[in-house]
Amino acid sequence: MSGEDAPAQQQNAEEQKQQQQQETKTPAESPKTESKPDPPPTSASTEAAAAAADTPAPAAEKAPEEDTFSYRALVLTGYGGYDKVKLQVKKGKPALKSGEVMVRVKMCGLNFADLMARQGLYDRLPSPPVTPGMECSGIIEAVGEDVTDRKVGDKVLVLNRSGLWQEVVVVATTHTFLMPEGMSFEEAAALPVNYITAYMMLFDFGHLRPNQSVLVHMAAGGVGIAATQLCKTVNDVTVFGTASASKHEVISQGGVTHPIDYRTRDYVEEIRKISPKGLDIVLDPLGGSDTHKGYNLLKPMGKLISYGAANMLAGQKKNLFAVAKTWYQQFSVHTLSLIQGNRSVCGFHLGYLDSESELIAQAMAVIMDLYKQGKIKPRIDSTYHLEQVGDAMRRMQERHNIGKIILTTEPMKEEEKKEEAKKDEEKKKDDKKKDDKKKDDKKKDEAKKEEKKEEKKKEETKKDDKKAEEKKEEVKKEEN
Amino acid sequence: MSGEDAPAQQQNAEEQKQQQQQETKTPAESPKTESKPDPPPTSASTEAAAAAADTPAPAAEKAPEEDTFSYRALVLTGYGGYDKVKLQVKKGKPALKSGEVMVRVKMCGLNFADLMARQGLYDRLPSPPVTPGMECSGIIEAVGEDVTDRKVGDKVLVLNRSGLWQEVVVVATTHTFLMPEGMSFEEAAALPVNYITAYMMLFDFGHLRPNQSVLVHMAAGGVGIAATQLCKTVNDVTVFGTASASKHEVISQGGVTHPIDYRTRDYVEEIRKISPKGLDIVLDPLGGSDTHKGYNLLKPMGKLISYGAANMLAGQKKNLFAVAKTWYQQFSVHTLSLIQGNRSVCGFHLGYLDSESELIAQAMAVIMDLYKQGKIKPRIDSTYHLEQVGDAMRRMQERHNIGKIILTTEPMKEEEKKEEAKKDEEKKKDDKKKDDKKKDDKKKDEAKKEEKKEEKKKEETKKDDKKAEEKKEEVKKEEN
Repeated sequence: MSGEDAPAQQQNAEEQKQQQQQETKTPAESPKTESKPDPPPTSASTEAAAAAADTPAPAAEKAPEEDTFSYRALVLTGYGGYDKVKLQVKKGKPALKSGEVMVRVKMCGLNFADLMARQGLYDRLPSPPVTPGMECSGIIEAVGEDVTDRKVGDKVLVLNRSGLWQEVVVVATTHTFLMPEGMSFEEAAALPVNYITAYMMLFDFGHLRPNQSVLVHMAAGGVGIAATQLCKTVNDVTVFGTASASKHEVISQGGVTHPIDYRTRDYVEEIRKISPKGLDIVLDPLGGSDTHKGYNLLKPMGKLISYGAANMLAGQKKNLFAVAKTWYQQFSVHTLSLIQGNRSVCGFHLGYLDSESELIAQAMAVIMDLYKQGKIKPRIDSTYHLEQVGDAMRRMQERHNIGKIILTTEPMKEEEKKEEAKKDEEKKKDDKKKDDKKKDDKKKDEAKKEEKKEEKKKEETKKDDKKAEEKKEEVKKEEN
Repeated sequence: MSGEDAPAQQQNAEEQKQQQQQETKTPAESPKTESKPDPPPTSASTEAAAAAADTPAPAAEKAPEEDTFSYRALVLTGYGGYDKVKLQVKKGKPALKSGEVMVRVKMCGLNFADLMARQGLYDRLPSPPVTPGMECSGIIEAVGEDVTDRKVGDKVLVLNRSGLWQEVVVVATTHTFLMPEGMSFEEAAALPVNYITAYMMLFDFGHLRPNQSVLVHMAAGGVGIAATQLCKTVNDVTVFGTASASKHEVISQGGVTHPIDYRTRDYVEEIRKISPKGLDIVLDPLGGSDTHKGYNLLKPMGKLISYGAANMLAGQKKNLFAVAKTWYQQFSVHTLSLIQGNRSVCGFHLGYLDSESELIAQAMAVIMDLYKQGKIKPRIDSTYHLEQVGDAMRRMQERHNIGKIILTTEPMKEEEKKEEAKKDEEKKKDDKKKDDKKKDDKKKDEAKKEEKKEEKKKEETKKDDKKAEEKKEEVKKEEN
């Protein structure tokens, strides 16, 4: 992967410019490379942390830390395809303010919002160049002034608006949560976004209770699996889950009562067959026409909770047609219709909730408890190196995953890199083939359409002829 | 009041015709006056009940009951003003089907939907002539076959789609609820609609929790008082309540933390002063522009619950302007706006929930418990005789009430009737005066507007003159 030796210096300057425009502080803003007279207040504890944390510590040498401190970071360099996210090296030790902690990152979570962001469809990510990433896990390496609830060496999971796909992050301590005993770093990175999203939707907006029924779209995705597990913490909840047939066995084991293959079946019909009165809760990450379907599936007192517009994502790059179609079909509702149906329509996105640390902390406390009780457990689909972020994103976007996709900060071995390079070549060829096939298919489709049109015309002409003949017959009869 | 000797016979025939058109059975459909060979299966128990119930029993004589059984009923004879609801006498004993009970009604509750219905603005009431009324209390006088959970003499409160404003009603047993010890008939008639509405809005859609804030419009109305009391069953809930200043003392005592006089203050400003971040729950019975205001007052994870369009009610008869304005301004929301705000918009109306007996029974069970614990208690504003239903409706529509307005089936005494007649005359005069004043005011307003227009014209002419002069000056200057 290119970009490791990209001008990190210049990038930091860009980021500092952005600092004033941004409402919420992202860790990517912190690194400073200018020569500064005062040493960072936490440099001593940082060294200790680096040693304690048992990670490859870049600050172990005796040289002035500010000059030698460097770390790898994923950077979205512009909107577009998978190759727009590049691995770069940032230099200079990030400064710590009061109430902040520095975390040596182990694992990062991949989310749908990251895919949207790469295509320029997610307005909560600052403009490129910027480090994406809303969740990670790691070890506290340094604490700022006034931080009393975290100490160097604490294992934490982190939730932030962006900026977490790098080896070192600086965040407010309120954005970190202590990992419970026995939780792996993979699990910790897989937990915050999916489980808080599913929890707040089901229990705050949804007010889920025993004997109710829930529709979970993309039931094999991160939120889908979290939602299914959380549904199962309530007695006798029926879960309808859409996923392609190959994933049904796994999601059934995970708690989905009725898996539905949305590719071969009309899910509305399938649900009506089993639950003619409809559903209590519909979780809708798709948007567009699926929101309408979900709304019409609601029982009285039912809740539709919209939390995304995945239908906008079609292909690697922004697909203007898909965006326009989803936007055009996007659901809009009048209160009088809600009143007559006794219905509720809610919108949720964790990315727009980042200032509500109290609400998030409350949800997280319950989620951690459920984890400790063994009632929930993130399912990891696969783990990729930072270098492989493109493959990771592709896997998610093409919906091959069952569970969470994780990025690890552990560097790739040399042999692996060589293999990757080969694979990359093959993939590029494959992509080209796919593109060519698409073009071919399109041409074929068009040819078929033309044929059909011709046939229709012929048929119509035949019909007209027939009618003309019939008329003639009638005229004849009348004449007789 | 006229109408006591109206042709009840004819009316029954009309109602039977409607029977086939109506989805839900209303008690008004049952009375039958045709001579029928089989005696109703429950006539014996009915007599016993009438005696046991200690009410003026029309069936006490020995004459064939079917012919002599009669009872007074309020009937909406057409859409329009207060005088469209007339007191009539229905003849013939209603037949009881399996699973039904006959109730000798004591008290009836008055609701906003009844006012809307009189103006033809509520589609859940069958077309006139029809008996309105969604709630009442009384004593069971007869039970149909297969009824095991109710017996003659039970004191019950009744909730039904319509048809309860009469002395005798026949309803499904699932629509009746046993009155707890110590509850008065007034309280029982005041409870179902307002408390179930407030309960389901606050706790199902709203998911009200400690430390949250709620806006209650019309806080001195039936739902307003119920909602305030229910808010107070949760710790540290802040209630903002709108009402005219004269009602503030009472609603404060009832639990409203911040009473706001919506007539002299901008309630949005007042709320923002106290709670700059906004509110967790807005209960909106008004519709139109107030729904927009409520939506904009929501915090993240906030819920707007729309449950009426009281803004449509302006004056005694349907005001097309108010209806059109409310309709035109009615709120419509896009899911993307909900997602970005993390908000929920819900619609509630008990009238559209009548097939959900299980949900209603669950809510009622909790409400009865809270009543027994002394945590809620309906506040009765005033009690009117059936003959005075026009006055009762006027009091509600002009928003003079604090709490529930009740209709009693107890007949009016002769002296009272005479006094009423006098009052009626005065009221009619008063109405005429008001109408005349309105017309006068309108004329004056128009005259003023004309004056203003004239003044504006004059000013504009002056300005034009000035400009012309200025131009002349400029031209002169240039010429010089």
